[in-house]
Amino acid sequence: MFRNFAIVPRIIFGRGCFNQLDDILSEKRSGKGFVVFIVDDVFQNSPLEERIPAGGRDFILHVNVDDEPKTSYIDDLVAKLRDYSEELPEAIIGIGGGSTLDIAKAVSLLLTNPGSAADYQGWDLIKQPAVYKVAVPTLSGTGAEISRTTVLTGPKKKLGINSDYTLYDQIMLDPELVAGVPRDQWFYTGMDCYIHDVESLEGTYINEFSRAYGEKSIDLCRQVFLEDHPDKDDKLMMASYFGGMSIAYSQVGACHALSYGLSFLLGIHHAIGCCIAFNHLDEFYPAGVAEFRTMMNKHGIVLPQGVTSGLTEEQVEQMVVELKTI
Amino acid sequence: MFRNFAIVPRIIFGRGCFNQLDDILSEKRSGKGFVVFIVDDVFQNSPLEERIPAGGRDFILHVNVDDEPKTSYIDDLVAKLRDYSEELPEAIIGIGGGSTLDIAKAVSLLLTNPGSAADYQGWDLIKQPAVYKVAVPTLSGTGAEISRTTVLTGPKKKLGINSDYTLYDQIMLDPELVAGVPRDQWFYTGMDCYIHDVESLEGTYINEFSRAYGEKSIDLCRQVFLEDHPDKDDKLMMASYFGGMSIAYSQVGACHALSYGLSFLLGIHHAIGCCIAFNHLDEFYPAGVAEFRTMMNKHGIVLPQGVTSGLTEEQVEQMVVELKTI
Repeated sequence: MFRNFAIVPRIIFGRGCFNQLDDILSEKRSGKGFVVFIVDDVFQNSPLEERIPAGGRDFILHVNVDDEPKTSYIDDLVAKLRDYSEELPEAIIGIGGGSTLDIAKAVSLLLTNPGSAADYQGWDLIKQPAVYKVAVPTLSGTGAEISRTTVLTGPKKKLGINSDYTLYDQIMLDPELVAGVPRDQWFYTGMDCYIHDVESLEGTYINEFSRAYGEKSIDLCRQVFLEDHPDKDDKLMMASYFGGMSIAYSQVGACHALSYGLSFLLGIHHAIGCCIAFNHLDEFYPAGVAEFRTMMNKHGIVLPQGVTSGLTEEQVEQMVVELKTI
Repeated sequence: MFRNFAIVPRIIFGRGCFNQLDDILSEKRSGKGFVVFIVDDVFQNSPLEERIPAGGRDFILHVNVDDEPKTSYIDDLVAKLRDYSEELPEAIIGIGGGSTLDIAKAVSLLLTNPGSAADYQGWDLIKQPAVYKVAVPTLSGTGAEISRTTVLTGPKKKLGINSDYTLYDQIMLDPELVAGVPRDQWFYTGMDCYIHDVESLEGTYINEFSRAYGEKSIDLCRQVFLEDHPDKDDKLMMASYFGGMSIAYSQVGACHALSYGLSFLLGIHHAIGCCIAFNHLDEFYPAGVAEFRTMMNKHGIVLPQGVTSGLTEEQVEQMVVELKTI
């Protein structure tokens, strides 16, 4: 049996295409409803926020992603929107990095599916279509814009809500929006994509579909992190999209599983957690890890060391259990 | 303004995935309706036809593509289906090469939009969604499985019905199905893809989205036509898909326009028409034409020569008019 997979059905790409968000939303507006913009709070009072086409009863919901999104946080945001209006919004727009995009996905799902976000962590537990949703990434590498999951830390585990309904209906890929990212964050998030590619290409489930996307994605990562190109933001945005398409078939491997454990126990963010774990996986991905270190050196990145030294044996055991459930 | 483009939202890829067509259709069947399989008549009484999951009131409609599809042929097929049942089919499945896939698209559109196929040749003239449709390509290279057009020869011109509604709802990419194609046809159709890539990559509208798809597609074409790989059918199937995605943004160029003229005036099929035209375009695509000739030599392909020698000046003038309307 081969997987029959769903992909985001509508894409706009280009420098400045964010300006067309108003046009895109106009097709969804009835004139009587409202739209919710879920925006990373680092953009509060920023020039980007001024460009958001909000008016009338529209709601700008700032979210904080200093910690990775928790299921309880999703439940709070959903309650806030239900307080704001008994009606469903006509659209939800996620503007930010992978965590913000995941929050916007989860909120869209939980507005139409009863209960807590924690009830739906797993595979295909969502039964009702979500509110129409649009992704506007401001960071490149996570693949959250294209994936059928929203990864959340729940009371018992870090696990995604995996469902065809989780997919965005529209993505806007505007490379101008990633220009101001701090270098460390840019690097770690880009490596999330690079590691997706290595894990996909080395994985058991590889086929020519995943290979074509994975090979082009890793080629673009090399152009971005080993060479110098004026359009590196455009390239990394496409690398992220292609990396996400590659793992849609081929899936991720050990590094992503380990990163989930680091995140659950130590609150380490996904992308840097992937880098910390990958740096110890020479045995499984020798060429990939060597190239990753060359990229780190070129960009003067120094990884935290010894992050798990304070863990108890029980906690390490818990990480192993985590690994087995993924 | 950037184009906000729609893509086929569901894909299955894999050797033997055609066996899952019955499962896929089961989600669309109400138990009371019927499904139409539009099948290239070269498959009549073939092992492939025996695998088609038709039963009950389902209808297998053989189509002949010795000539490229005409708008009048579409009108005839639509009339035939209306005679068969007053109800709409629950799904239409196109099984064949680019012409068959285009016929299935056009029939799906004309069952829900009144009038003749010729009324809709152009851009965004279709107003009603089509019948749910699935593409099963048995030839690789045209990109018909992914494009938002169905190219038809009408009373006045050869021109596509370009519309978001033209897109398939589902594609099944099963590399096993392309195994039995005659070598000449395999080569010409593959070159349709190679030429898409050259025209996209050299085109005015190129951006990083089209470049990523176009570069990987041409890389796969090189693996297929300049190297030897046991999984060349898988690779060409992905090259075709990626080539189609590349021109979705970047569009085709002079060669495709010339091929349309050759087809309209002389009935030359699209893929071989592209090859005949491309072989004379050294001035515009020097590297591409040189590589194309290397591929021809490797596979012992000899192109027809002097095909336009019998044309009158008036006919050549008509070709120029054709070119200007594309």
